[in-house]
Amino acid sequence: MKLAIDAMGGDNAPEAIVKGAVLAAKEIKGLELTLIGDQDQINPYLNGEANIEVIHTTEMITGEDEPVRAVRRKKNASMVLMAKEVQEGRADGCISAGNTGALMSAGLFVVGRMNGVDRPALSPTLPTQDGKGFLMLDVGANVDAKPSHLLQYAVIGSIYAEQVRGIKKPRVGLLNVGTEEGKGSDLTKKAFQLMQDAPIHFVGNVESRDLLEGVADVVVTDGFTGNVTLKTIEGTAMTMFSMIKKTFMSNFKTKLAAGLVKNDLRTLRDQLDYSEYGGAGLFGLSAPVIKAHGSSNDRAVFNAIKQACQMVELNVTSTIQDTLNDLQNKEDE
Amino acid sequence: MKLAIDAMGGDNAPEAIVKGAVLAAKEIKGLELTLIGDQDQINPYLNGEANIEVIHTTEMITGEDEPVRAVRRKKNASMVLMAKEVQEGRADGCISAGNTGALMSAGLFVVGRMNGVDRPALSPTLPTQDGKGFLMLDVGANVDAKPSHLLQYAVIGSIYAEQVRGIKKPRVGLLNVGTEEGKGSDLTKKAFQLMQDAPIHFVGNVESRDLLEGVADVVVTDGFTGNVTLKTIEGTAMTMFSMIKKTFMSNFKTKLAAGLVKNDLRTLRDQLDYSEYGGAGLFGLSAPVIKAHGSSNDRAVFNAIKQACQMVELNVTSTIQDTLNDLQNKEDE
Repeated sequence: MKLAIDAMGGDNAPEAIVKGAVLAAKEIKGLELTLIGDQDQINPYLNGEANIEVIHTTEMITGEDEPVRAVRRKKNASMVLMAKEVQEGRADGCISAGNTGALMSAGLFVVGRMNGVDRPALSPTLPTQDGKGFLMLDVGANVDAKPSHLLQYAVIGSIYAEQVRGIKKPRVGLLNVGTEEGKGSDLTKKAFQLMQDAPIHFVGNVESRDLLEGVADVVVTDGFTGNVTLKTIEGTAMTMFSMIKKTFMSNFKTKLAAGLVKNDLRTLRDQLDYSEYGGAGLFGLSAPVIKAHGSSNDRAVFNAIKQACQMVELNVTSTIQDTLNDLQNKEDE
Repeated sequence: MKLAIDAMGGDNAPEAIVKGAVLAAKEIKGLELTLIGDQDQINPYLNGEANIEVIHTTEMITGEDEPVRAVRRKKNASMVLMAKEVQEGRADGCISAGNTGALMSAGLFVVGRMNGVDRPALSPTLPTQDGKGFLMLDVGANVDAKPSHLLQYAVIGSIYAEQVRGIKKPRVGLLNVGTEEGKGSDLTKKAFQLMQDAPIHFVGNVESRDLLEGVADVVVTDGFTGNVTLKTIEGTAMTMFSMIKKTFMSNFKTKLAAGLVKNDLRTLRDQLDYSEYGGAGLFGLSAPVIKAHGSSNDRAVFNAIKQACQMVELNVTSTIQDTLNDLQNKEDE
């Protein structure tokens, strides 16, 4: 198995990326890695690993680049060359911690869509109180979704949750403004009907106030709502931590208390840190493409590589493809 | 000034409703109130206030009722009779802590829309870290919004924030998946263009991760996204409080710390409790209609009544009407 890695993407690149790759190259059997980026910056972190190859390029896509334009114009950017490794069959999948929009463009235009998938979906695993987490898709690859797209997300998410996350009969919910059938927008009403007949364990509508309580293993939504929901969770948690910090710093008594619970609160913070749950999959492409969190450290990069390995090993892409084909054939009958 | 109040709506009805009304009747000059509901349950909390009248009915709409059907069929429900007081000119505005969907239906079908407003919007004021709060609209009255609806929300929200909340030149933001112009769905892209030319202080796109930091005074969004965002904030805060509680209860040291910061954390919780910011306005109707939080205590009911009073006194409804008319005329030119 061979994976291509954008060594220059993310806040801690290339150090964290290369160190995470070295770890993976050592621990995961039969793995070969291709790192793409500036060899002068990459080499210091390598120790002559036999199963790591470097493709040198100095061009890169930054966080400020306009995604579609950057992928089209910067033909030698590390991220674009990474996607090309997959496109031309020299890698089975790829990982980047760089510009999310650009990775979606590179996925779409270079790696290419899976047959039968209209729009790929970006799918992070988000934290729940019980630590199990849930997959949410789409969180922003496709902001104007149609009911049939949501149906595809449901099927894709269910297969991923079952195969890679090891959840038997994953509960698939549709994010909506109420739990009763018949609630919602035109989009969710139509998607509900489609999802009822899909080969998934559909648990109906779910509300966003129950997400972190683990109301479903897979939460399906359009890219606009998913993106806003994801950022609302992030923002609310950040603001609360900041308010808690202020509360603890307000007087002598609270400072004393802060000393006593410091470590426990750090644990709490880690529980809510979704980079702990691996990278976000860009599903619906013809090969596994993983977006590692921008702030990924070497451990998070290692986890994202492992995630891509699992997807390759378990043939997740072809299972998704076959299931969607069956669904399409059933509709055509 | 006369207001009609649904005495039977909300978790603590009629006690909290009547007590809040009694408080308002005493403290707000020139106020007359009509309480609608079961007189046998209402009278025990009254002390012969000269400016409180009771309209007796035993019919009521519950939280389980299907909103539109309930308003159409339960013609003598306290909420419906309340709206009728406004419709027939015997009250200048109304307040209910009952079924939100039913109140929206009663507002729409009984109180009636304002001229020139296509769809009313439900608009709570949500907490921010600095305690100032922001108005978000719509959070669920209209789940399939058009760009022109969002434009109307922007104008309505700006006028309310300026007149009732006393914010000079309120910053109006459009909830979107990125801050740059050109980001977003078809809906938000078109709304952005319309809002740029509106008589408001438009600050452009805002992201949901910045809401509680107070990125705007008025946040405009469609009812689907707004509802999901509101419930995501609620859910994330609830889950975090529950996790913090567990953390504090985990061992002797943390229990000790809990004792030290208990009161401070309660203050924090109150800061995030948006019922403190008054009820949610149902804007775009021909008179002020306020939805008090379902769990309102007497203080919250008092605040909601005060809010309705301010809207009546400051002629907010006619200011909105005039501004929207001007906007329409300008478009027609």
